Amino acid sequence: MGGDHGPAVVIPALVRAIADLPQDVRFLLHGDEAAIRQGLARHAQAARRIEIRPAERVIAMDEKPAQALRRGKGTSMWNAVEAIREGQAVAALSAGNTGALWTISRLILRMIGELERPALVTSIPTPRGVTTLLDVGANIDCDAERLVEFAIMGEAFHRAAHLVSRPTVGLLNVGSEEMKGHEEVREANRILREGRIDLDYRGFVEGDDITRGGVDVIVTDGFTGNVALKAMEGVGRFVLNELRGALTSGPLASLGALLARPALRRFSERMSPTPAAPLLGLNGIVLKAHGGASERDFAKAIRLAVDLARSDFSAEIERNMRRLPDALAEPAAGAAQGAHE
Amino acid sequence: MGGDHGPAVVIPALVRAIADLPQDVRFLLHGDEAAIRQGLARHAQAARRIEIRPAERVIAMDEKPAQALRRGKGTSMWNAVEAIREGQAVAALSAGNTGALWTISRLILRMIGELERPALVTSIPTPRGVTTLLDVGANIDCDAERLVEFAIMGEAFHRAAHLVSRPTVGLLNVGSEEMKGHEEVREANRILREGRIDLDYRGFVEGDDITRGGVDVIVTDGFTGNVALKAMEGVGRFVLNELRGALTSGPLASLGALLARPALRRFSERMSPTPAAPLLGLNGIVLKAHGGASERDFAKAIRLAVDLARSDFSAEIERNMRRLPDALAEPAAGAAQGAHE
Repeated sequence: MGGDHGPAVVIPALVRAIADLPQDVRFLLHGDEAAIRQGLARHAQAARRIEIRPAERVIAMDEKPAQALRRGKGTSMWNAVEAIREGQAVAALSAGNTGALWTISRLILRMIGELERPALVTSIPTPRGVTTLLDVGANIDCDAERLVEFAIMGEAFHRAAHLVSRPTVGLLNVGSEEMKGHEEVREANRILREGRIDLDYRGFVEGDDITRGGVDVIVTDGFTGNVALKAMEGVGRFVLNELRGALTSGPLASLGALLARPALRRFSERMSPTPAAPLLGLNGIVLKAHGGASERDFAKAIRLAVDLARSDFSAEIERNMRRLPDALAEPAAGAAQGAHE
Repeated sequence: MGGDHGPAVVIPALVRAIADLPQDVRFLLHGDEAAIRQGLARHAQAARRIEIRPAERVIAMDEKPAQALRRGKGTSMWNAVEAIREGQAVAALSAGNTGALWTISRLILRMIGELERPALVTSIPTPRGVTTLLDVGANIDCDAERLVEFAIMGEAFHRAAHLVSRPTVGLLNVGSEEMKGHEEVREANRILREGRIDLDYRGFVEGDDITRGGVDVIVTDGFTGNVALKAMEGVGRFVLNELRGALTSGPLASLGALLARPALRRFSERMSPTPAAPLLGLNGIVLKAHGGASERDFAKAIRLAVDLARSDFSAEIERNMRRLPDALAEPAAGAAQGAHE
């Protein structure tokens, strides 16, 4: 029911996605029964794999999280998340109110370990594919343990979402030899180097590695990650605007832009962000699609949710999380050496 | 003597810059006397405004800072900085060894107040001009006081370098209402809001404001600033590479690119970084030009050094720095209100 378009986008997107998905993937569709039935009326084949779960109430896009928590029970969003806890669904996807989805998911599913908030993860295009970057804004103050948790969750996410069998992981730091970053990143580096957490850890990386693609997963605190992500988005917008200006600055340049248009269009598609972000660190898979997601975007988001649901995603995170207390204990023999590699 | 090209670039750049500069601007040129005399041989007019300061030794580009400190006395770089302390010069400019320039400048000129390292400042293009961003990598752990110092220095720099009479200042933070950043930025925000420091402070800004140009000066710690700057540089490179690929992906696109070439060239000039960075926070004006600076870039760097030297730059920083202990003391009446504006 959520997002800027509600069932008008969600239902056609689901019909489109179902056509390509294996027969054993089935869906619970939470919301206004009449609207859903109407949307599915002409799609009998898809409808066979969809179970409608009527919900009379909906969380408004502008509702405050605290309010959503108080009066959320019985809404379509609440029921979608509750279905995970009850074992009826493996993953939940919503284009609705982000704050409400967070708050409700944390309450119903609870966070893994001592995480306070789901980590926000994003995918950045590189010449070789995509970089998974986290946390991009949820957890502002991060100690070493939190950073290691992000590495565990980000690696499992990257494997499940991008079908890379053994993703490489880097820790974001500053560049010069003289300044090797603050205590938190140095300590997280030590833990990851030590090898008790089962990851292909490659050490420190720098800001420009995010778009270089040297490692698959880049880990940072939510403050740095949020600033870096928004700074990169700003550059993208600035460059495209300047370019538009440059290419329409005279008749020859305009003709050039016209001829190059299909190539430029492919280019800006490549630059567009992923359609859904997982809320990493919950006991269950919850994804948030852009409120303004188009039918095509939402279909992509559904495929991502299915990829995560069909993977060992949660089990892998749990397995490595269980190794964390041991890895945090005292440095193993050889750890000091590893830290100076 | 420094940089990739030494006097072969520095002397022609100086001759070029001098032609446009007011008559009262004069230069001390430190280095190999014979090489300098030879370079100036055909430029009698410029030579009249240049005093040669022979230095027999030079700091190598690959010399370690500690080594440069031990054996630096009497080198061209050392003498250039020493001339500031002795009151013979107002500013020093070098394309030489960055680490050595830092270390020697800190030793000879000392830092203002309790700063440990010069803040690194950079200029980012925006649709309206440039944003001054600092610190981009020198000071990793920053408390509120350090951030306020950056605001003071960045504002004075922006006024002197970009001739803006009253630059606006913002403090970099994360976006959502729920998360207003860590303690250090909240406290710095309180101090700046209070108004005892004489700045046109506009509050928190986000990562994408760096290229938006809503405020002139954006302040952050060296960790976040370094990551943001490198992430932005990475996006710039990625976009230009992808674009090149897109525009040469077929005959029509290639023809388009050919026709648009002059516009694209103007565009990439606009995106190129500034030719020199000041070492902010020293008792004196020291600028570092890119090692690979061209004659044109180095001439620009000279003009920037002159702009700073002719401005009230240092006095303005000192004046506001003196207000800092007062501003750090207890919150003035109305401060709490200001913090919630």
